[in-house]
Amino acid sequence: MSKLPPLSVDEEELALLTDFYQLTMTQACWKEAMDGVATFSLFFRRLPPERRFMLACGQQHAAERLARLRFTDMALTRLADTGLFEAGFLDWLARWRFEGDIWTLPEGTPVFANEPLLEVEAPIAQAQLLESLAMNLVQLETVLASKAVRIVLAARGRPVVDFGMRRMHGIDAAVRGVRAYRTAGLAGTSNVLGGLRHGMPLSGTMAHSYILAHDDEEAAFAAFARHYPDTTLLVDTHDTLEGVRKVIELMNAEPGIRVGAVRLDSGDLGQLARETRALLDAAGHQEVKIVASSGLDEWKIAALIEARAPIDAFGVGTEMGVSSDAPVIDLSYKLVEYAGTPRLKHSPGKINLPCPKQVYRRRDAQGRYLGDVIALRDETGVEGEALLHPMVRGGQPIEEGMALAEGARERVSDSLTRLPEELLRLEAGHGDYPVELSSALEHLRSIT
Amino acid sequence: MSKLPPLSVDEEELALLTDFYQLTMTQACWKEAMDGVATFSLFFRRLPPERRFMLACGQQHAAERLARLRFTDMALTRLADTGLFEAGFLDWLARWRFEGDIWTLPEGTPVFANEPLLEVEAPIAQAQLLESLAMNLVQLETVLASKAVRIVLAARGRPVVDFGMRRMHGIDAAVRGVRAYRTAGLAGTSNVLGGLRHGMPLSGTMAHSYILAHDDEEAAFAAFARHYPDTTLLVDTHDTLEGVRKVIELMNAEPGIRVGAVRLDSGDLGQLARETRALLDAAGHQEVKIVASSGLDEWKIAALIEARAPIDAFGVGTEMGVSSDAPVIDLSYKLVEYAGTPRLKHSPGKINLPCPKQVYRRRDAQGRYLGDVIALRDETGVEGEALLHPMVRGGQPIEEGMALAEGARERVSDSLTRLPEELLRLEAGHGDYPVELSSALEHLRSIT
Repeated sequence: MSKLPPLSVDEEELALLTDFYQLTMTQACWKEAMDGVATFSLFFRRLPPERRFMLACGQQHAAERLARLRFTDMALTRLADTGLFEAGFLDWLARWRFEGDIWTLPEGTPVFANEPLLEVEAPIAQAQLLESLAMNLVQLETVLASKAVRIVLAARGRPVVDFGMRRMHGIDAAVRGVRAYRTAGLAGTSNVLGGLRHGMPLSGTMAHSYILAHDDEEAAFAAFARHYPDTTLLVDTHDTLEGVRKVIELMNAEPGIRVGAVRLDSGDLGQLARETRALLDAAGHQEVKIVASSGLDEWKIAALIEARAPIDAFGVGTEMGVSSDAPVIDLSYKLVEYAGTPRLKHSPGKINLPCPKQVYRRRDAQGRYLGDVIALRDETGVEGEALLHPMVRGGQPIEEGMALAEGARERVSDSLTRLPEELLRLEAGHGDYPVELSSALEHLRSIT
Repeated sequence: MSKLPPLSVDEEELALLTDFYQLTMTQACWKEAMDGVATFSLFFRRLPPERRFMLACGQQHAAERLARLRFTDMALTRLADTGLFEAGFLDWLARWRFEGDIWTLPEGTPVFANEPLLEVEAPIAQAQLLESLAMNLVQLETVLASKAVRIVLAARGRPVVDFGMRRMHGIDAAVRGVRAYRTAGLAGTSNVLGGLRHGMPLSGTMAHSYILAHDDEEAAFAAFARHYPDTTLLVDTHDTLEGVRKVIELMNAEPGIRVGAVRLDSGDLGQLARETRALLDAAGHQEVKIVASSGLDEWKIAALIEARAPIDAFGVGTEMGVSSDAPVIDLSYKLVEYAGTPRLKHSPGKINLPCPKQVYRRRDAQGRYLGDVIALRDETGVEGEALLHPMVRGGQPIEEGMALAEGARERVSDSLTRLPEELLRLEAGHGDYPVELSSALEHLRSIT
């Protein structure tokens, strides 16, 4: 009986998830028989104010999805129904295939302003059509992973678990967000579908409602701890320290009961953690851990750790789930070359870099990153590791390139040992990571 | 060949889009044979700093989706694979149906702190399971519509078009966001799938890349204008006023060409709009409109209109698409009654209201809103229009209630004429909308 619009976006609708002008421009190119090869570069112009680096995430999966885009009969019918497209163009769209190349950074690569995360090289009527979806796909995971890694850094090795599904921006953000969190180094997620789909351990405790639906807190603790050995009990429903005392009484009264942790979810978490630890230790329960949640972000976690709060793990939701301090990065997908000629929009105060590019990351003898050079793709003799890899060639995903996505989480944890230490601080303003242009790129830019 | 995880979330996976603890708590309730009826209330505790009201959006569609949730074989298999659930519980989940009631505000209702957007009344093992998905679904549309209506207000009747798809948080946000924008009163969207799915006119102009891929701006303008009579030409690729002059030359040279508008996308939009208008008018082209875009939000639009910039329509993307000043509201889904007894978490500094509720909106003789009263649902004699309507009864969507969703856009535009004028200002701090508790609710709260 339902007349609700569907909630999901199926693969066969994906080509319609675009800005209308991509289709009108492509129809214009088709009418004009424009078939020159275009290179588009996906990058951001500046870091958000507090950020020192971003983690490029989502661009490898995006590359493969973009290469597989098709205009299905369903999509074409819906476009025809708009009355805005010619029959000849719709026939052409039915045969439309992406036959070009896509280069990307590997998932989880630290990235800086003006460095391409992804470059597309294809006839313009193919490359242009990818813009909106490419940006949407890369934006989400890059924004979320880049926020999450700050929280991981702040926690200094203590596990961080994602509790954010309920306040994220819709279903795709919640599910694909878990992939970004996995890459960034989180330990687990409360999000069942996200965790199952993206290989993150599921984690969760209990809600206040469970406590409140029992006759009293003692009864709720006892029941839950019997069902789930080593579970985490939420102790702040009425009074946190009273709750902790009840957990201790329960463990003392029923020696078979094992409690893994108590969770503090309100109040002065640092002070409550100290008092909770003291109560547990005095009762001989050094094995019971303390989990804290409640509006946490990287700054609050850093302050708790600075104050030596004895918290063993953090649950983080809302602030991480929308990347509240920087919910967006100003990603652009810009034409940089067409038909063999560098192209450049001249924008006052903005840096635009022409031509296909490569990014080289230089290391010192210990393997620490010294800085990057943005160069022309076909330039030779630039030192450092080439970061952009071919992921799609002639429309076909390249297995070797795509396999780099598997190492995303390890890439991040490795990178965190190689980035200059001052970049790992939460606050900005301690000197930027050096990103230079190669002399050839600098020269080309000056004459374009 | 692809091993990419799917991008879509199908109806049959939707029950898994939840926090893990919903399932462990539900298994606990099942083991304990807890079958008391619970009422949960979905509300937010405070308005974001700059906001005077929010638009409740998404809750009607959410109610119907929640009522239809099922644990399919696929979902059960995946849960079984985790090893965390008992076979008996999974059998029970296979037969799980929502058989309770859901009340909601109609889509597009202005809503204030502590007023329920949605209430669920069902046996606890049914009502608890809905929490995470309900919050995720309602959060997205409410956040986006509440931001968008500020932009509509700032534009003072000039059309606003959504250009934000590329920078929104993933696919669901982009597509379902258009529904929120439609409710909030936007005139159109660039998002093809979102517009087709949610009945919003498609709109779009051209990108800089199209200009740059032509030999020069003149050629690009001429080609595009021939393809699309009355189109909008993007004039800032090289120099905005030079671009405008080229558009005028084109119209003069080819009288058959009709240009609908020029789009300004960088620089001092107010000053450029004035100079553009002067150039167009001097050339006798009063009919060509001016569209402005480029990092616009409600404040920038208000300033442009205050300065009498001759801009006819606005394209708004990033700031609206992530609701940058308030990307999240602190929605809660709280147990307020269980087994006939009011339930309340006592949280210092937080208002929690027990029991099923109703919200009454009072009007003056002209129909303007005077204020709201939050009352007990079964309380009698409270003046005003009852805002919460039954949407699902005994697990079945109620056609009459669900039909209210159709009027969402009209409900918003009507409400904007009835809200106190000071609430329509962009800045906060001019007195709050009066929301009182009924004496019965106040009394119950004091003794719970």
